[in-house]
Parts: sequence; structure tokens; C-alpha cells
Amino acid sequence: MTVKFVVLYAQPGDPGDFDRRFLGEHMSLVSKVPGLERAETARFVAAVDGEQTYYRQAELYFADSKALNAGFGSDEGKAMAANYEEIAPPGSRRFVAKLDE
Amino acid sequence: MTVKFVVLYAQPGDPGDFDRRFLGEHMSLVSKVPGLERAETARFVAAVDGEQTYYRQAELYFADSKALNAGFGSDEGKAMAANYEEIAPPGSRRFVAKLDE
Repeated sequence: MTVKFVVLYAQPGDPGDFDRRFLGEHMSLVSKVPGLERAETARFVAAVDGEQTYYRQAELYFADSKALNAGFGSDEGKAMAANYEEIAPPGSRRFVAKLDE
Repeated sequence: MTVKFVVLYAQPGDPGDFDRRFLGEHMSLVSKVPGLERAETARFVAAVDGEQTYYRQAELYFADSKALNAGFGSDEGKAMAANYEEIAPPGSRRFVAKLDE
């Protein structure tokens, strides 16, 4: 795995409702994306140096950029992205990162 | 592993110099921290929805919060933290996150 899609979810208005949709609905759509090798999700519990800007993190691992782009371009990838737009609190961020060997 | 320490490094003034210090010097100090089970580093290469706020990410995995706190409280943890203060560009962020099972 050489690339990962990193999502930082901003603080939701209703954390319980967000968790239900994120863990129950969104991650099920994520798991169907072709080429996904591993998904890791976590909840931020402390900020060392300031505001706890983010509530949750998701990291989706792919073999390379080509596999990531193919996954996101697939019907399953589009369903995942549409659901993200529904559930992500304003201020959430999405990045692509290249893993160091 | 149930917790990770997530560092988001802001964009450095001199990426080449930052990379040299981060990869050559900082990660060597990180690797000495007692209780560290795994470290993953990555370079952000794209932001999907706005500014590429962060340049690099580091994730340090520990068995649990107690192990993380013990690691950071050790001499090796203090040496790592002191080096972080030297190399981290202003605006860098540090969080503790609990992994979902």
C-alpha cells in the first residue's frame, strides 16, 4: 500500500447521530469500493496544542494512486462520495497522502 | 493497538530541509520511544476540498493510553517532543485518537 485517502471529520452537531451514520452506513459503503486494501477509523479524544478541530478520522489505503483513482471513479466510489456529502460536518477535510517506505 | 498519536505538520518554509530533519533526525528519536508499536509517516500530495493545509503526517501507535502516556513521559519521549518543537512549522497540530475496533 503506497497511498491513503485521509478524511478529517469536523465536530458534528449531534455526535451520536453522526456516529450511527458514519459507522453504520458510511463505512459499509466504503468497504465496497474496488481496490480498497484497508480502512482504519478513529475518534479524536484529545488535542495537544489547541482546539479539538476534528471529531473523527478515516484512512483508506490503496496500492497506488491509479487504484485510488479507479476506486473513487467507480459506481461504489461515487456512492461513497455522495454519502460523504450527506454526513460530513462543515469544515471536514479530505487529503491524499503518499506513504513513506 | 488501540490508540495513536496523530501529528499534522503544516507547510514548512523549506520542504527539503524539513524532510531531512524529519526523516533523518526526528523519526530516529521517535523510534526510540518505549512502548511504540508502529510508526507510519506520509506526505500529503493533494487536498480534495481546499487548501493543502498540511505537508506531512506522522502516526504513532501504542497498545493503549497508558502506554502512550508512559512513552511520552520517558526521557526518550521528552527528547522526541523537544525535537518536535524545533522542527514543526507553525500551525502544526497534534492529536490523540482512539482506534475503532
